[in-house]
Amino acid sequence: MPEGLGCEGKRESDGTLAALWRLQRWYILLFSSFCPNRKFTRLPHLAGTQQNLRLAEQIRDEWLAFGLDSAELVWYDVLLSYPNRTHPNYISIVDQHGDEMFNSSLSEPVPEGYEHVTDIVPPYSAFSAQGRPQGDLVYVNYGRTEDFFKLEREMGINCTGKIVIARYGKIFRGNKVKNAVLAGAKGIILYSDPADYCAQGVEPYPAGWNLPGGGAQRGNVLNLNGAGDPLTPGYPAKEYTYRSKLKEGAGLPKIPVHPIGYHDAVHLLKNMGGASPPPDWRGALNVSYRIGPGFTDDFILNKVRMNIHTYNQVTRIYNVIGRIRGAREPDRCVILGGHRDAWVFGAIDPVSGAAVVHETVRAAGALRQRGWRPRRSLIFASWDAEEFGLQGSTEWAEENAIMLQERAVAYINADSAIEGMYTLRVDCTPSLHTLVYDITKLVRSKVTIQKRTVCISMCETKAEWVGLNCCSKLGSGSDFEAYFIRLGITSGRARYTKNRKTERYSSYPVYHSVYETFELVERFYDPSFQRLEAVGRVRAGLVFRLADALIIPLDCKEYARSLTQYANTIHVLAVRMLNDQLMYLERAFIDPLGLPGRPFYRHVVFAPSSHNKYAGESFPGIYDALFDIENAADPDRAWDEVKRQISIATVTVNSAANTLHPVA
Amino acid sequence: MPEGLGCEGKRESDGTLAALWRLQRWYILLFSSFCPNRKFTRLPHLAGTQQNLRLAEQIRDEWLAFGLDSAELVWYDVLLSYPNRTHPNYISIVDQHGDEMFNSSLSEPVPEGYEHVTDIVPPYSAFSAQGRPQGDLVYVNYGRTEDFFKLEREMGINCTGKIVIARYGKIFRGNKVKNAVLAGAKGIILYSDPADYCAQGVEPYPAGWNLPGGGAQRGNVLNLNGAGDPLTPGYPAKEYTYRSKLKEGAGLPKIPVHPIGYHDAVHLLKNMGGASPPPDWRGALNVSYRIGPGFTDDFILNKVRMNIHTYNQVTRIYNVIGRIRGAREPDRCVILGGHRDAWVFGAIDPVSGAAVVHETVRAAGALRQRGWRPRRSLIFASWDAEEFGLQGSTEWAEENAIMLQERAVAYINADSAIEGMYTLRVDCTPSLHTLVYDITKLVRSKVTIQKRTVCISMCETKAEWVGLNCCSKLGSGSDFEAYFIRLGITSGRARYTKNRKTERYSSYPVYHSVYETFELVERFYDPSFQRLEAVGRVRAGLVFRLADALIIPLDCKEYARSLTQYANTIHVLAVRMLNDQLMYLERAFIDPLGLPGRPFYRHVVFAPSSHNKYAGESFPGIYDALFDIENAADPDRAWDEVKRQISIATVTVNSAANTLHPVA
Repeated sequence: MPEGLGCEGKRESDGTLAALWRLQRWYILLFSSFCPNRKFTRLPHLAGTQQNLRLAEQIRDEWLAFGLDSAELVWYDVLLSYPNRTHPNYISIVDQHGDEMFNSSLSEPVPEGYEHVTDIVPPYSAFSAQGRPQGDLVYVNYGRTEDFFKLEREMGINCTGKIVIARYGKIFRGNKVKNAVLAGAKGIILYSDPADYCAQGVEPYPAGWNLPGGGAQRGNVLNLNGAGDPLTPGYPAKEYTYRSKLKEGAGLPKIPVHPIGYHDAVHLLKNMGGASPPPDWRGALNVSYRIGPGFTDDFILNKVRMNIHTYNQVTRIYNVIGRIRGAREPDRCVILGGHRDAWVFGAIDPVSGAAVVHETVRAAGALRQRGWRPRRSLIFASWDAEEFGLQGSTEWAEENAIMLQERAVAYINADSAIEGMYTLRVDCTPSLHTLVYDITKLVRSKVTIQKRTVCISMCETKAEWVGLNCCSKLGSGSDFEAYFIRLGITSGRARYTKNRKTERYSSYPVYHSVYETFELVERFYDPSFQRLEAVGRVRAGLVFRLADALIIPLDCKEYARSLTQYANTIHVLAVRMLNDQLMYLERAFIDPLGLPGRPFYRHVVFAPSSHNKYAGESFPGIYDALFDIENAADPDRAWDEVKRQISIATVTVNSAANTLHPVA
Repeated sequence: MPEGLGCEGKRESDGTLAALWRLQRWYILLFSSFCPNRKFTRLPHLAGTQQNLRLAEQIRDEWLAFGLDSAELVWYDVLLSYPNRTHPNYISIVDQHGDEMFNSSLSEPVPEGYEHVTDIVPPYSAFSAQGRPQGDLVYVNYGRTEDFFKLEREMGINCTGKIVIARYGKIFRGNKVKNAVLAGAKGIILYSDPADYCAQGVEPYPAGWNLPGGGAQRGNVLNLNGAGDPLTPGYPAKEYTYRSKLKEGAGLPKIPVHPIGYHDAVHLLKNMGGASPPPDWRGALNVSYRIGPGFTDDFILNKVRMNIHTYNQVTRIYNVIGRIRGAREPDRCVILGGHRDAWVFGAIDPVSGAAVVHETVRAAGALRQRGWRPRRSLIFASWDAEEFGLQGSTEWAEENAIMLQERAVAYINADSAIEGMYTLRVDCTPSLHTLVYDITKLVRSKVTIQKRTVCISMCETKAEWVGLNCCSKLGSGSDFEAYFIRLGITSGRARYTKNRKTERYSSYPVYHSVYETFELVERFYDPSFQRLEAVGRVRAGLVFRLADALIIPLDCKEYARSLTQYANTIHVLAVRMLNDQLMYLERAFIDPLGLPGRPFYRHVVFAPSSHNKYAGESFPGIYDALFDIENAADPDRAWDEVKRQISIATVTVNSAANTLHPVA
């Protein structure tokens, strides 16, 4: 008996052998036909395009053919953003007469084999303001809060009326843009520095997996704080929903934003004047990284001009929602969801994740056709417009909020399955840690990559767990946000990722560029598709156990485990009561009043960081109240807010603990 | 077989005879020992006093002796308000030298038999601001929104810097105060006009049940909008909870407020100058009811001065919480709650209601001691500090919000059981209408008052139902507010009341005065205590059926009823699922974003009126957006808000309907 099975067996008493047999059968079906879904990466499938609707219809039809009880398209009309087809976006250096001395590229060099593909959207910053601001450039490093603090407080540089240039990396790009607006900049250029987007000893694509000099990172630059469609915060974007006026729409940047590659960035940076940068502000280009403002004496009359014509448009998007009805508790559900829309081909983001959802549906459908049903209902989702601010998943959560609050046991997210080659990594809420640990043991015993079992740093050894901190907090930046942070549904995500200790580049080098092709994955990231299988086993295993275990395997310390021991002897209604308490534990951390200024971030214990949406912050209310408090204008008031936030955390944790008391 | 039993029998299939037998046994126990609890009315029991704590301890001890599984005191430290013992509150008329020409009474004449009682709090407006404003008086009729509109827009009278005098009645006194503040007044005097507080042909107490000229109505003048303790909105007022600074505390009036009786009011009104009042502004005193500002020529140099020293103080209050654990679904509960604190003796408000709770606990305890348990858990509550803004019930709801959202099936309120002699009246959410109708049929067949069966206008005939509109919406003004409006728990209240068509006085004449004695009830309102029994049967019957029926008797049209027909054939888990859907239906109308400016009023279909907290408003968001829209400063914006509110209502009703779809 494999190690993992033994462990699993000891923990379960709901017909141990039958349960394990079912999980194995699930896995066998899952990976007998596992394929990386090359077909999903042949053409671009940007949200709001015909091609992405076709793909939705294809997925719906296949899910029905696999054997789901139902699969349907669910549409919303949300605000998206596209480049103007006749007026391209670019950055210029202009001389004193306004004549353009240099223009940035209008598109990325297309990779071999894709030359005839149409509808490749050029690199742009979705939801950028329109405009042609012109001025002196200031280099702001990563554009983080601390970078602007250093500029303003230590270097004495005022960004008001300047155009700033920030390198991508470290934090969510929307936070960079917000910081630039707060600093008074009238435009912001984002570029990928080789220091952050090239691994040492690796060639640029197609020879290797590094970002080529002509590649650039697309992405939205919203600061939505969980609102979904910017025009309908809190409510689903249906035909009967009121839409706020565009000028009221919170979260849209007020200045032009544009992304460029490092070949173009050299031209902007090489002649910059002003102070020398601190050592950790230097990237890997052969330029001085001077701060500015503006160019050196020889070029002092030259200015930088942005030419941005991107427009916003209400556009129809489509989620695919598939279901298998639960056998015993059909009104409880477990959701596996990931997005389908991609900036271009999206072979990593999202197709490596969407492929896992697709294959899980295939396996579940096959079991269902043989007469099996899980104890609880399964919901599978292919979300649209994630790249434009998690819109498909958020709008569906808004339309189904009441149902989800009452019935959702857990939400498992399935964005990119592979973003590195080193280790499996799981971000989840603490009550899932035990289940994750158990499932990764099973996976480790089954999957071998390059002659070693899957690297699962979180549980290889205890030391490794601590050292790599591999079972992390959930931040944001993917579709679990509304489910976890707004609705308080137990959530987790799993992916194969890099070694964060030794690999310094941000996300993965070709992230959101045209070079996210099937060949990139096949040649470099996962040649045997074993990593995809490992991630698939974890995601599908989580979904299966959460949907099928008699006692929901959420670990509130020993609570669930000890009760599981006598699960067979207790009345079926008692099981339901216990499961309700487990399911609602996460809900207990929701404060309906929300965090200060962030009404849709309602989880008192976890929220995306205010300074980096990608990162999770613990007790975010307290953290934000304490942030930079030594410089508060009114210290008494600021400390009062700290006290208030501590009190809210205490009240909420107390209240959550109360829900676990034995009933009556 | 009585008519009601037959009807009940046809509707139920969960062991019809057994269920009816249990209900009858409940009723027999309930009324075998029914007593009006004279002991609760011997002494004043104002919230925050030793006497009210003693009463809480006594109730807890008796509930334990009756046979509850548990009964405990639950405390909170909330902001209350009391008159200063050494500096009494009063109103003066002063001459040009500032000398007092007339002073209002410092207390009410104490009724016979209570002369030696200490600690009778004099009439005051709780949470009044302190101060000694002096100025000209303006008579503002009832102080309603429409009264101030008429003053300002038709009569051209500016209340800025004036002291206004308003008669009690029609709307909640806190709304009058808010309107006065909005109009710019620097003080407001509230008085009881005989037109509103004396019935024709009835003598003043003690010869009859009318308000004597020396009596005055106490009451809080907050505009809390459901916040409970003003210092801890949204969170329970425990030792670990942050308290906002008093100046930030929303809802506390910014001006002095004081109530007087009509003997005192004559002195203020009799020499008033200015325009004649519209006919419907005249009360029943022998004065002109001129509007002012100020007195007639002969007295033009005289001014009115308010002398108000009432202070706010954080004070400990105590709820009594009793429980009987449910036999089959202990994690579902039905709550019967009513307040214990009174302004003075409180024989009507709240003791006529508290007596019903006490006797219901007695009956339930007796059944429990004989081995019976209801299917679901019962929670009995004796709330504290209701008179100070529903504080005990709201703080408990805040501390237990998560538990209540998950587990509460229904909340039945038990404030004053009798406030008139004419008819039984029930205010409840629509899904309770059918159950109320069935139970009142049973009650009608059992209780006879003055040789006729109980008048239950809602179901005597269909015509009477329509004519008297007797099954009304819930407004506010009692402890159901947080449960219904904030948490979305199915709620109802029942009481014996006046004939609203023919009896013009507001609430009942001696409301919140020292004359609410046991003798008032015994001599006039309910000499045989049959009305109390009728109300008790309705309240207890609702609680019993909601807690004990196999299928929760909530009527979503034919939904529950048709399913009940085959309840015996369905699996016990299916019953639970169905009951969850029924229980959560009310929750589905909760919008976590709340109404505009009223974050704790979250029920999209019902809220207390913005213009009168006592009254319920349907679709309050739309109503408020449309209110006085023809005078909106920015009509486009105002109409946009109407559209937005219609959209929110549509989204929410849609979402509620979705929760009733058969699962999966």
